[in-house]
Formats: sequence, C-alpha cells, structure tokens
Amino acid sequence: MKHHPKPCLIGLDWGTSSFRGWLLDKEGRIMETVRADLGILKISDEGFSDVYHNQLNPWIEDHGKLPVIASGMIGSRQGWLEAPYVACPSGPEELAEQLAYVPAEGMDQPPLLAIVPGMNHWNDGVPDVMRGEETQVFGAMDEEGQREIYILPGTHSKWVVTQEGRIEDFVTFMSGELFSVLKEHSILGRLMKGDEDHQESFDRGCSQALESPFGLLSQLFSARTMGLFQQVEEEGIHSFLSGLILGSELKEAFSRFSSRKEKEFPSLKLIGEGRLVESYQRAFQLAGHDCEMVSGTPTTVGLMKMARFASII
Amino acid sequence: MKHHPKPCLIGLDWGTSSFRGWLLDKEGRIMETVRADLGILKISDEGFSDVYHNQLNPWIEDHGKLPVIASGMIGSRQGWLEAPYVACPSGPEELAEQLAYVPAEGMDQPPLLAIVPGMNHWNDGVPDVMRGEETQVFGAMDEEGQREIYILPGTHSKWVVTQEGRIEDFVTFMSGELFSVLKEHSILGRLMKGDEDHQESFDRGCSQALESPFGLLSQLFSARTMGLFQQVEEEGIHSFLSGLILGSELKEAFSRFSSRKEKEFPSLKLIGEGRLVESYQRAFQLAGHDCEMVSGTPTTVGLMKMARFASII
Repeated sequence: MKHHPKPCLIGLDWGTSSFRGWLLDKEGRIMETVRADLGILKISDEGFSDVYHNQLNPWIEDHGKLPVIASGMIGSRQGWLEAPYVACPSGPEELAEQLAYVPAEGMDQPPLLAIVPGMNHWNDGVPDVMRGEETQVFGAMDEEGQREIYILPGTHSKWVVTQEGRIEDFVTFMSGELFSVLKEHSILGRLMKGDEDHQESFDRGCSQALESPFGLLSQLFSARTMGLFQQVEEEGIHSFLSGLILGSELKEAFSRFSSRKEKEFPSLKLIGEGRLVESYQRAFQLAGHDCEMVSGTPTTVGLMKMARFASII
Repeated sequence: MKHHPKPCLIGLDWGTSSFRGWLLDKEGRIMETVRADLGILKISDEGFSDVYHNQLNPWIEDHGKLPVIASGMIGSRQGWLEAPYVACPSGPEELAEQLAYVPAEGMDQPPLLAIVPGMNHWNDGVPDVMRGEETQVFGAMDEEGQREIYILPGTHSKWVVTQEGRIEDFVTFMSGELFSVLKEHSILGRLMKGDEDHQESFDRGCSQALESPFGLLSQLFSARTMGLFQQVEEEGIHSFLSGLILGSELKEAFSRFSSRKEKEFPSLKLIGEGRLVESYQRAFQLAGHDCEMVSGTPTTVGLMKMARFASII
C-alpha cells in the first residue's frame, strides 16, 4: 500500500515584494508550493484577506482547514497585522509565544493566520531590526550548536550571530540598496554599460575594498576614476562597484565580529540563492574565509519549528 | 584726483552647474562680478563660445580686449577644450605651464581663453581627480607654508594636502552625492519630513559616526531604525543622515591623514560658503578639531597667480 503523506501546516514567506507558500507534511516535507508577485507593497489595506484566500483556497478545498503561519513584512506596520518585535537575544520559543493572530470572521473559527514577530536589537543606543530572516536562521541552525554567523544577502543584508539555538546579535548592511541607488541615480552610473556580470572587475573592486586601509566613502569615487582612466572597462564598472561595496561589507563585518572576546572566528553560513549569493561566495573566497551554503529551504523548517513551539500543529 | 583702477584680467570659474566671472585689477581686486546658471551640463557643444561672448562682451566693450582664464569642468572632456590632468604633487607653476588655450577665430588674435588643467593622483593603483579645487587651494595657501589640509565641501568633497606652495595629496569623498541619492531614492527617504536643518539630529548622527567603532555601511540603516523607534523625529531624519555621512567622512579622513609620519595633525582650513559649509564647521566642532574658514575669494587669487606664472598678464 502506497504511503500518502497528509499536510499538517501551510507556511508563508510574505515579504515586501513577493508571496511564497508551502504545503507541509508533519515531517516538514514540502508537498506543494505557490509563488506570486503579491508582496505587501503591492496590496492595499483591504487586499490581504483576498490574496490569502485566492492563493490558499485550492489547498484548503483539497485538504480541509489547516493552520497557517507566516514570516516576513506581513507582520510590519504596513502589513496585515503588526506583530511587535521581540528583543534579541531570543530563541524560537520566545518568538512562538508572541505570534500575532489574524482572527477569522466567525468568532468560533480558528484564526486565519499566525504571524511570526520580527526581532530588534539595541547596540550602543542604536536599534536594528529584521523580519523574516530570524525564521530562516532558526530553520538553518543547530539547536545545540556553537557560535555561528549566518549571512543573508539582500537589499538590506543581515549578519546574524547564533549560539545554542538562540539569536544573540545581528546587524544590517544597506549594501544591496546602496548599490542600486548609486547605479541608477549617481554620477557613477553614467559610465556604466550593460548589466552582465564581469568577474574580473568584481574581483578588482572587492579586493581593493578588502585590502585598502581606507573606508568606503573615499573609495566610492574610484568607481568613476577607474573608468575615466581605463583601469576598468565600461562593461565592468557596475561589477567593480558591486565588488567595492561587498568587499566593504565583509571588511566591516569581520572587524565588528572579531572584536568579540573569543579568538576564533565563528563559522560562516550563507542563506539564499541566485546571482547575489554567488557574488557573496566569491567575495568570501577573495577574503580567504570559508563560507558554507545552507541547503534546503530554511524558511519552512523555521516555520515548522515555530508552529510546534506555539502548539498550532 | 580720484584713482581709477584698470582691469587687467577676467577670471572664470566655469563648472558643471554654474558660470561665474570676475573683472580683476592688477592687484587682484574684484571690480565687477557676473554669475549665470550656465554650467557645462546646460550647454551643447557649439554653445560655449556664445555663452562666453554674451557674458563677457559688456566688459570687453567697456575696457577693450583682456586676457581671460578659467578653472573648473570647462576643461574636462565634456567642456570646451580638454585640458589634460597634471600629476600630483605639483605647484601652480607646473599647472600654468600646461594651460590649454581656446584659439580666437582670427589667426593673429590672442586666444579667447586659457583653461587651468585639473590634477590627478594615484594612490595604491587607484586614481583620483579634481578640476577647479586646485585653483581655489593655490589661491588660499601660503607659498612658504607648512603642511595644511584644505577641505572643500561639495557633491564630491575634496581634502587637499599642501606644503610649501605645492599640492601634495588629495582625496575625494562622495558624501554630498551619497546623501542626496539616499534621501531622494532609498528607503531612508520615506520616513523623512521637511527640509529644515535640525541641529540636534545632525549632532546625533555626526557624533554616532565619529564615536562608533563600526563603518558607514552598517550605520546607514540606523537612519531608518532611529525613526522607526522614535529616537529621531521625522523632521530630523534628513539631518541625522547628513550628520552620519559627514561624521563618517571626518573619521575616514582623520584616520587617513594621521597615518602619515608626522605626529602632529596639519592645520585644517575650510573653503566654501552656505549651509553645507556650516554643517562641516559643526562637524569639526563635534570632532574636537579646530578648522579655520578661508576668507575672500580664493578662486580669483588662484587664477591671478596662474595667469602671472603663465605670463598672460
């Protein structure tokens, strides 16, 4: 007799620009997937419920009511329901206690959706925040593990420090957005040609940033002068700038995290996919740091973990 | 009998966004001034000669032919005639030898215009450039003087190191342009309200950058989170960001120039006017560094100096 797995949870990653859903069995295996360009910035206030029902009804018709849990910007002030930030350090249990529940229309119905809170962290009087990345890290990390750093590239890339199942520290680098506004709107973009990756120019920018004793603010202008003096060809200037910014991110992060008491640098793990993550892999290689890729879909593992701690499955 | 000074030179500062002219007597005193929004970006290729004649004919009709000298982006590839870069270190004599002359239409006429070259400087294989700032610095500096650093705020602010009448080193910081692209085009601009200077928020951003052991890339995001957590009010976020960037510029520059052999930090002199320069003055005050303002119009003094070395007056 063939084994028919049964779904036990719908997990969502509902962010600024996209909506992703997974139908999960009780082992956390992915049975089906849905994806739509329906991030919170594309939805007006009343539209969250419509998107939810349109996207999930086919699964609910097939399998009946299921608990649904989401992470990401859907829990922000601009989202469906604000899920307050939980202070760092925290583990998944603490976040599971603070899930925000979107109520069903009927009073006796279970809630439509549980939303995972974001995390905040104060460092010398300066706050930092994340929403969504904490769930990926909880999914990727070993609960008993030693100190590790997870790197999540993106518009606002995050470096997240974990130890023994908890997130202890994190920091946001505006690298992705900085690259894109400088490319689109500054004088640096005027000499650029094309959009193809140009490995040699990326390496040159990244190595320059890693090796230079100078900071980013004085190096940015070199993305112009290296073009003016034919040191980097026009087709490579965007890659040179990307390398310069990623190299600066790594240098800042290494100096930040190596100032900790432990002498040994924690092991580094990259979460993500696509071109941007490949650029980070190359940057780590140039910096001479090993950096392991996290396999699978850490978001679904994190959502399962959180749903269990909250006893909604 | 009343003394009637006679003009001996027309000096121009012809940059990216504006055209400024001065009618100068033989002591370098300003007799008359003209200013127009006719920077090189606003003029098509054939238009330079028209702008020149339209702006300067009234003076030439009153006083006859006069030598004319210009500094700034008019000597760039996008300008009227490219004046090649002179390598740093150099003094005004070396630049005067390399003036580029725009010829008059008649072969037996003196040239219409002498253009001051820009300077370039290679540092660890990375080039830097300036056009126009060198003339201001030559005008401001003492020819016998000890090492000094001139700071010229702007879209691309310059720190220029001089000694005994020569420019020895310089570096460009993209601070002004970085602030404006982040304010206009990034997520940081979304929480900002208004455009009024907000001293307290500027001070907070600037002090944070000066005191933090962390770099700019990880601090930029705080211009968002400080707003989200009501640490800086909406009306002050643009000033906080400006402070953060200027504080980072000062910190990078201090670390760059204090790594020199001399133990004593060179004296600092600011060239410029308006709100931006006031922000720099405040930033130096917060950093605990004395910074003197250069008085007068250093551009006209520099142009006179260059014209004399080139024997065109």
